[in-house]
Amino acid sequence: MSDTAPKIAPPHLGEPYLLTPGPLTTSYAVKQAMLRDWGSWDGDFRAVTAEMRKMLLEMINDTKGEFDCVPMQGSGTFSVEAMLASFTPRDGKVLVLSNGAYGKRIAQTLDYLNRDHVVIDKGDYMPPRGEEVTAALRADPAISHVVVVHCETSSGILNPVAEISQAVYAEGRKLLIDSMSAFGAIPLGVSEIRYEAMVSSANKCIEGVPGFGFVIARKDELQAAKGRSHSLSLDLHAQWAHMNKTGQWRFTPPTHVVVAFLEALKAHRAEGGVAGRGARYADNRDVLVEGMRGLGFETLLKDRWLSPIIVTFFNPAHKSFDFNSFYEAMKRKGFIIYPGKLTVVDSFRIGCIGQMDADVMRQVVQAAKDSLNEMGVPDAAPPEQALIERARLAA
Amino acid sequence: MSDTAPKIAPPHLGEPYLLTPGPLTTSYAVKQAMLRDWGSWDGDFRAVTAEMRKMLLEMINDTKGEFDCVPMQGSGTFSVEAMLASFTPRDGKVLVLSNGAYGKRIAQTLDYLNRDHVVIDKGDYMPPRGEEVTAALRADPAISHVVVVHCETSSGILNPVAEISQAVYAEGRKLLIDSMSAFGAIPLGVSEIRYEAMVSSANKCIEGVPGFGFVIARKDELQAAKGRSHSLSLDLHAQWAHMNKTGQWRFTPPTHVVVAFLEALKAHRAEGGVAGRGARYADNRDVLVEGMRGLGFETLLKDRWLSPIIVTFFNPAHKSFDFNSFYEAMKRKGFIIYPGKLTVVDSFRIGCIGQMDADVMRQVVQAAKDSLNEMGVPDAAPPEQALIERARLAA
Ligand SMILES: Cc1ncc(COP(=O)(O)O)c(C=O)c1O
Ligand SMILES: Cc1ncc(COP(=O)(O)O)c(C=O)c1O
Repeated sequence: MSDTAPKIAPPHLGEPYLLTPGPLTTSYAVKQAMLRDWGSWDGDFRAVTAEMRKMLLEMINDTKGEFDCVPMQGSGTFSVEAMLASFTPRDGKVLVLSNGAYGKRIAQTLDYLNRDHVVIDKGDYMPPRGEEVTAALRADPAISHVVVVHCETSSGILNPVAEISQAVYAEGRKLLIDSMSAFGAIPLGVSEIRYEAMVSSANKCIEGVPGFGFVIARKDELQAAKGRSHSLSLDLHAQWAHMNKTGQWRFTPPTHVVVAFLEALKAHRAEGGVAGRGARYADNRDVLVEGMRGLGFETLLKDRWLSPIIVTFFNPAHKSFDFNSFYEAMKRKGFIIYPGKLTVVDSFRIGCIGQMDADVMRQVVQAAKDSLNEMGVPDAAPPEQALIERARLAA
Repeated sequence: MSDTAPKIAPPHLGEPYLLTPGPLTTSYAVKQAMLRDWGSWDGDFRAVTAEMRKMLLEMINDTKGEFDCVPMQGSGTFSVEAMLASFTPRDGKVLVLSNGAYGKRIAQTLDYLNRDHVVIDKGDYMPPRGEEVTAALRADPAISHVVVVHCETSSGILNPVAEISQAVYAEGRKLLIDSMSAFGAIPLGVSEIRYEAMVSSANKCIEGVPGFGFVIARKDELQAAKGRSHSLSLDLHAQWAHMNKTGQWRFTPPTHVVVAFLEALKAHRAEGGVAGRGARYADNRDVLVEGMRGLGFETLLKDRWLSPIIVTFFNPAHKSFDFNSFYEAMKRKGFIIYPGKLTVVDSFRIGCIGQMDADVMRQVVQAAKDSLNEMGVPDAAPPEQALIERARLAA
């Protein structure tokens, strides 16, 4: 983290830290920006929207001006659905790389959209690799698009998108990325990683409050999406065309959330942009993982695959450990943690994103230690089964 | 307005009043409720969601417990689309009663949804009447559903939903209502007016900030909607089932907006619920209309059809009048007004909803007077054409 980075202030009024992958702990300045009402038709608000789109585009270093940014009301899933519906033609075929809940959700969305698709299902947390993508694409020339989750938040794995992008374009296909939980902290510059479109939302690494998402996409893909949407509300082309023509959102925007997000974007820039933000989160993760391992906890993933976004830990095997009691004990100490999403073994997750730094992460580790003590759990080692699960990753 | 109603405080920090139909001027307390971050998985937030749903349901006096409330992320249009997709079967046929922009939008949404439909198009502001609904339903037995806009915000007309409901059920069909801009100020009790479902949003008469909508629907209709949605994100049945099972929203909720809305609901109750809120708005409208007429302005609608939500005035015919200058002059005086949506004559709109009372409306009239003076417009009378337009309503 750079020396000039603004200090992280503790949450206001003794509220707990949200160690969750969004909604997360935002700065007080971001929330204070919501203490005003805005007319969505008014020029002042149109200027907010324009500045927000510009600042988001700057993060992908689109020097050729080939991309545009289209915000979309609703949660992040709404933007993922809008991206899939807009950029995959009705007669296209999609390869979904799935290794967790959000990959599964993409396949489910394609079911709703009646888009032909196949899934490479890597289970709960195994990474999809370039070679298998290449093989799948060679085996099925009908596949037109590949969709991948950047950081699969359900395990915290950072999928190898650069390797996957190379495989996709080497076979002449197109890539769409769900970068919901990664964008803003992990580089996604268009000159380094090729893709047609990506999606993220207000309440992840840019540290805004929840209420909308955004798609960043090639303008020619946006143009080609005209008339393709299954939904009036989620029609990305229509939103784009209307916004570029009038400066306004097509339907009422979440004005307060948007203004808060602009404040968050300014703080993001002041922290050194994607590099600065990513460095703080990596630091958070390192302190957290080292501390938790010191208490006997084991991470699901080997270091190579750990993202700086969120980390999955196995529940301790000790008979006195119970997740709900642990959750409540941590909450009493001011930390909201997150349940796990693994299907085979019990786990929980701790997020590294939001208004937190290494100091806070040390307090998290201390709180975990105290919580274990209160529960009478002397040893946080996971059950054998969990280690077998993890060993698969070494293969 | 009751004597015990809380006082209306002026907007903070000299910001302008939003005389617009949402986003509107909210209380400072509503905005202050957003100064906290909430974990969406946490029990505290689940309690907020549950209380909100309960308070909304209370407004329709559903003594038999036949209805439920399903909030939905996105703007109000997203909830309208979710309602239409969920409650009209794919082989159904819909009669749309259209007299303005929001009626048109319903027909357009049905185009996206591939739902067979016919439109009774009453133009910019003529009310759809019971007899013509009866005639249309008798002429076409294939029509299964009728959709009507409660207050058509584009003109401000209050459509006769009671009369329409009677016509619909007398012919054995079903009614869906877009009550976006009316719910919370105009009664929609299910024992007075029969319907299957209605929709509104956070930033209208309940005076929250924008970011989500909600559908209130018969439980048997919600049940029947299973598997019908064209969209994962807008799947109302799935949202309902998930929420009733887990207490959580299916995808990340706009936590801050939801908490602000709960605060707004409490203020709504303290003001005397729908009756109290409606009385204040009617008072606002009466003061506004009388004052503007005193300046020579004419309303589009005859008194009988004027809603207490928003009023359309004709632009003055005088050659020195220019809407953009008038808008800016009003804005400098602290009032944001709204452009008109009529296709035939020029007009503008002034909203009566939000944190404003009769005192504020008197200031609005004074500001309009001063703005006309600045522009050198001695007479606010509309052009002949406008009066002819309006005369149609007398027929
Ligand atoms: C990778 C990923 N995709 C999609 C989503 C869904 O976003 P939302 O919950 O805002 O709909 C999330 C949320 O955490 C996510 O992490
Ligand atoms: C009657 C009516 N329907 C639908 C809408 C659309 O709501 P939103 O702009 O939140 O999408 C509005 C908005 O003013 C409205 O007044």
